Amino acid sequence: MGVLKFSVPEIFFGRESLKYSSVCARRLGAEKIFFVTDPGLEQSGWIDVIFEILEEKNLGWVHYSNVSSNPRDWQIEQGAELYQEEGCDVVIALGGGSPMDAAKGIALVASNGGRVHDYEGANRIQRPLPPMIFMPSTAGSGSDISQFAIVTDVERHVKMSIISRTLVPNISIIDPILLTTKSRELIISSAIDAFAHAVESYLSPIAFPVTEIHSLKAMELIIRHLPRALETGCLDDLEQLSIAGTSAAMAFSNAGLGVDHALAHSLGGMLDVVHGLIHPVLLSHVMRFNMAACPEKVADIGRIILGKTLTSPEATARAGIERLESYFASLGVATRLRDIVSSRVNLSQICEMAIQDSCVLSNPRKATVEDMMGICEAAW
Amino acid sequence: MGVLKFSVPEIFFGRESLKYSSVCARRLGAEKIFFVTDPGLEQSGWIDVIFEILEEKNLGWVHYSNVSSNPRDWQIEQGAELYQEEGCDVVIALGGGSPMDAAKGIALVASNGGRVHDYEGANRIQRPLPPMIFMPSTAGSGSDISQFAIVTDVERHVKMSIISRTLVPNISIIDPILLTTKSRELIISSAIDAFAHAVESYLSPIAFPVTEIHSLKAMELIIRHLPRALETGCLDDLEQLSIAGTSAAMAFSNAGLGVDHALAHSLGGMLDVVHGLIHPVLLSHVMRFNMAACPEKVADIGRIILGKTLTSPEATARAGIERLESYFASLGVATRLRDIVSSRVNLSQICEMAIQDSCVLSNPRKATVEDMMGICEAAW
Repeated sequence: MGVLKFSVPEIFFGRESLKYSSVCARRLGAEKIFFVTDPGLEQSGWIDVIFEILEEKNLGWVHYSNVSSNPRDWQIEQGAELYQEEGCDVVIALGGGSPMDAAKGIALVASNGGRVHDYEGANRIQRPLPPMIFMPSTAGSGSDISQFAIVTDVERHVKMSIISRTLVPNISIIDPILLTTKSRELIISSAIDAFAHAVESYLSPIAFPVTEIHSLKAMELIIRHLPRALETGCLDDLEQLSIAGTSAAMAFSNAGLGVDHALAHSLGGMLDVVHGLIHPVLLSHVMRFNMAACPEKVADIGRIILGKTLTSPEATARAGIERLESYFASLGVATRLRDIVSSRVNLSQICEMAIQDSCVLSNPRKATVEDMMGICEAAW
Repeated sequence: MGVLKFSVPEIFFGRESLKYSSVCARRLGAEKIFFVTDPGLEQSGWIDVIFEILEEKNLGWVHYSNVSSNPRDWQIEQGAELYQEEGCDVVIALGGGSPMDAAKGIALVASNGGRVHDYEGANRIQRPLPPMIFMPSTAGSGSDISQFAIVTDVERHVKMSIISRTLVPNISIIDPILLTTKSRELIISSAIDAFAHAVESYLSPIAFPVTEIHSLKAMELIIRHLPRALETGCLDDLEQLSIAGTSAAMAFSNAGLGVDHALAHSLGGMLDVVHGLIHPVLLSHVMRFNMAACPEKVADIGRIILGKTLTSPEATARAGIERLESYFASLGVATRLRDIVSSRVNLSQICEMAIQDSCVLSNPRKATVEDMMGICEAAW
């Protein structure tokens, strides 16, 4: 085992934890906050709640919500320009992965200069970022915990992965009450994304016990609580999904992801599909591909999905993967690649781009473009 | 579930991770380091290794090693005076719980003024501390991860608990190679301390899934790897004990401890015994006392100790506690209170002091002085 690094933000977790946002901002030296959301959140009413909390502490803010799903490079640049013009000092994001990743990009460009493209890849950020406080409104992206920011290069149609310890926000405030105003589709896609984070980080060659326990816990909670949360909308179950998303993020941020996410980024960059809905199509096939490298670990995942072990690790692994496929199908999401990609013709380009993604580096089995094509064919 | 807070340092974990100490110090702005160890470490040779690493980056340092086991208030004051006289800017500690707790006290008094006594209890620190990097040489105290510092008030013969998020160091560098030069006794007492951290944090009413998985993992690793590590001295097993200590610390720092630690602090303040060797005497009796409040959780611990469940949670819990007592006895440590306290006469004073300890607040069952006396009588 080499030297492993583990970095997570300070976390406030629980119902009504949103109220800590202003105290946290003050503690980080805020006078004028750069507040990032997206248009969906503007309609939800939560923004007014936050503004009232900030106002109580006499904090000023600039509100930036020009952020789309799969945030674009130009949105980052526009935000960074506004941050500087307005002389902001702390970045707060409220929302799902898109506004949080956009906020990271804005904090990065505002403090380090250049374009967001200059920092694509791992460990390319030199100077400190302004303090960041993130409040996730979905249970899945993990951007409020992680070292990752994913931004779309609109010219190249590529989702760029920017990975650096300095992208971990100072504070993450996770209030599961926010989930009560989310659509069924968003709850599903976020939970599936968290599940994929948990699986890929567990199989990563740089996983270690501290990340592994988080990966396993996240899988267990999602398998058990997602169906119940969808059925009842009950806060107790939604809260468990929040915990799962947080645990999965603690794991993947420090242990990395794999081929499933590399392909998902590539597909997302080209087709602008909802990120979390790509995993039901690909993840089981990536797990089958990875079985050759780490059969026991895939069996551990199988044990969690099945709730028991079978006669051999391989049998447990294979049955777990099959059960996962039925589980995804039971959620009513697309499960074949042909449902989200219009033509096979694009597949080789998608794989050519995916092989460049940093996530490939922490896949447990070395994958070539041909291997990725094989996975896409199996998923077709 | 109320709002829970989770705060851990950035962690570098693994063999030869010590080499990162100078890079980390530079990153935190160090020019002149205040370096805290104890006399035992001076003889081990590790200090020269660190000084060479610091020298390579042209870092200056002041070396303070006047730290005893169960560090004293006056040692903190002496250290803080030296820190200021020398104009230091970053604190590094290398050692077990004592030098690390002393380093926290020194950083606290040097930056916040007054005496260390002024900060006894929870959340009484107002101003930021200088950056701290800790390198634990034992696998157990968890001071490199935790919000706790324990310092002896020599006049009152009391171990003061100082608890604050600002006592979490910036960076913890955990190199299991350091354990290879430790005595059998120190390996045992540290691992038992970590086990007690894991048990008490698991049973705490403010435990939540993120801390619970760390508590359970720590127990499992210690039960499995401590006997092997003692038998073979093998680095693979020592490394697992390091992971266990780290996980247990992540749990207790954020979920708190209980009556076992309250009594252990009180006993330690009065009698200056090795902290980790008090738990084999008390922990099982505290667990029996707590069973009434959380039988299922004590059964979860029983399942880990026994490696299986019995016919009922209560049976699993009771059998687990009994097996834990034999486990402690098999390590050759004292298991009765009369072996470490010379006279029963002191017990009521010990309990009177223990009830004041902040750890009592996170015990799952409300305990009076009489309850503590009952525990001590059972342990006698």
